[in-house]
Amino acid sequence: MELGPVTYGVFSVAGGPRRLGALVGDRVVDLTSAGVFAAASLNPLMAAGPAVWRAVHDRLADVDLDRHAHPAHTVRMHRPFEVADYADFYASEHHATNVGRIFRPDGPPLRENWRHLPIGYHGRAGTVVVSGTDIRRPAGPLGPGEFGPTRKLDFEAEIGFVVGVPSEGPVSADAFAEHVFGVCLVNDWSARDVQRWEATPLGPFLGKSFATSIGAWVVPLHALDHARVPAPRQEPEPLPYLRPAKPWALDLAIEVRINGHVVSAPRFADMYWTPDQQLAHLTVNGATLRTGDLFASGTVSGPSPDRHGCLLELSWDGRDPIALPDGTTRAYLEDGDTVTISATAPGGPSLGAVTGTVRAH
Amino acid sequence: MELGPVTYGVFSVAGGPRRLGALVGDRVVDLTSAGVFAAASLNPLMAAGPAVWRAVHDRLADVDLDRHAHPAHTVRMHRPFEVADYADFYASEHHATNVGRIFRPDGPPLRENWRHLPIGYHGRAGTVVVSGTDIRRPAGPLGPGEFGPTRKLDFEAEIGFVVGVPSEGPVSADAFAEHVFGVCLVNDWSARDVQRWEATPLGPFLGKSFATSIGAWVVPLHALDHARVPAPRQEPEPLPYLRPAKPWALDLAIEVRINGHVVSAPRFADMYWTPDQQLAHLTVNGATLRTGDLFASGTVSGPSPDRHGCLLELSWDGRDPIALPDGTTRAYLEDGDTVTISATAPGGPSLGAVTGTVRAH
Repeated sequence: MELGPVTYGVFSVAGGPRRLGALVGDRVVDLTSAGVFAAASLNPLMAAGPAVWRAVHDRLADVDLDRHAHPAHTVRMHRPFEVADYADFYASEHHATNVGRIFRPDGPPLRENWRHLPIGYHGRAGTVVVSGTDIRRPAGPLGPGEFGPTRKLDFEAEIGFVVGVPSEGPVSADAFAEHVFGVCLVNDWSARDVQRWEATPLGPFLGKSFATSIGAWVVPLHALDHARVPAPRQEPEPLPYLRPAKPWALDLAIEVRINGHVVSAPRFADMYWTPDQQLAHLTVNGATLRTGDLFASGTVSGPSPDRHGCLLELSWDGRDPIALPDGTTRAYLEDGDTVTISATAPGGPSLGAVTGTVRAH
Repeated sequence: MELGPVTYGVFSVAGGPRRLGALVGDRVVDLTSAGVFAAASLNPLMAAGPAVWRAVHDRLADVDLDRHAHPAHTVRMHRPFEVADYADFYASEHHATNVGRIFRPDGPPLRENWRHLPIGYHGRAGTVVVSGTDIRRPAGPLGPGEFGPTRKLDFEAEIGFVVGVPSEGPVSADAFAEHVFGVCLVNDWSARDVQRWEATPLGPFLGKSFATSIGAWVVPLHALDHARVPAPRQEPEPLPYLRPAKPWALDLAIEVRINGHVVSAPRFADMYWTPDQQLAHLTVNGATLRTGDLFASGTVSGPSPDRHGCLLELSWDGRDPIALPDGTTRAYLEDGDTVTISATAPGGPSLGAVTGTVRAH
């Protein structure tokens, strides 16, 4: 059997134990019962390294699907890996420029450092949840003496990269594929009013830490080799550690839906800083990597409003609410709204969609 | 036997397995061989909750130390717990004011939000190391087109709090002792030049993420009950979630040594925001807690230079280097310098010191 693209996740059937699974077509292969790889999360497979990743993929071709697979709609999906550290970048020039215009209308939209290094920060690993988990509207401080449920709940459409193989020192941009196992979708939920009030000078904290959703399926990096496209031109030329021998970007077409209606279609190839640059940056100071480290791209936004990756930009912080087909408008998310982010490489595969519904505080 | 203060850590003997240990006087009790609690890290004990914490302490009184203890100087200490998420606060008004004066001499030293909420950010859990681990001078971007080993390597003297019992929702300030297992010293190593260049607008990243050192011994919270003192007056009155029924602070006398010479003696009771307020803040948005979550106070600084908790303040970013007894001066740390931070409650116990030596890049 010739295998098409395979993605990995963690599933259970009828309340049974969690098992590592591979999605082949519309069936989920139980890697343990098939004797391919026994695990209850992706971490052991991710830690095993590229040779094992290839071997597992190759062995899947021989699995008897009738014996070892379940129809995808009959399984329950769980968070696919245990998150070690979670870092989030800010790599879209369009996004960073728009945020600057909205929050600092009187200054230059991009900070002086932005074109010199991929700006990032650490988020809360313990609140990374799997697609399908409801998101409770968070409360927090909103201003001097002011506290309450956020009035500016937002999504951020991002692409996440999952580290498989640990490192003890700097990982060069060219060593990316030796450490990164795969790719998943990320929704970096944000409470914009909390974030704006708290984030000076140490960055976002409560405005982000209540929840970050990831897709249930992780696409192995090599399954996206055909989606590599030239990296964007960078001016000024970045520091040597940010210069891969063969610069590349990923051509992933993203779609963001609110209650089923497409509100944005960002393209990942529009990002200024690329994933290999981000990993090189994250480790250039000697910071070690662990299996399960997750880093996300930052909001993926493009040059036009139909490619903006969050409501902050889409509604220009509420000034221009967007219209939904049911006649309602959205400045920010309302209770009951379901946000679904999907992405596809040219000719496939699709990344597992990440979805979440907002619950009242 | 009447037990004095007991602290917990993870040790090994002669290359043997890691074991949970209790420091009683100058002997390390092997909790596994003594039949008290079998574990290779503090996490299972911390997760077990206050009733078990008390029971373990009580059972230690019956242990035959001649059979189950090792002289403290014969054991090797390891990181005492697996860090889940690491958050760091910025809770000293003196520190925040000094940093503001140094970095923004033309503006008000304290940001508008500082007295309204305990400012914090997430750090890198994977690079938290145990006392005694050498710290390699990190390299990073230093400015436009500039890269190299940091020229401004600093320490930060902080007190850390370790979560034992997980939570699913907000933890009120009054529920602090139901979740927090204990206290340890923290040195939040910082590369000031990297930090200053990168930290706008998302906060510190590479300037902190290369290493954070913690003491090898964790003091249970209840062992510091006698060190509670009234909390500082806060103006304006904080939001309701930041108002414990009985406000308290901890009277810990800290000493910072460079190469054995005391360069500063901060007092933890000088902090503006208190640990129970920090935990309430960290969770008020619904962020869950996991066993092993570590949060640190931020640099402990007092009103006078002999109580400044980092070299940024002590040398005023290098303007006024401090003198060491060997006739040398320090603007920032030099290769080979050993930084040791210790702390003691009135009448004891001492927190396990945290020490680290700077290695060349």
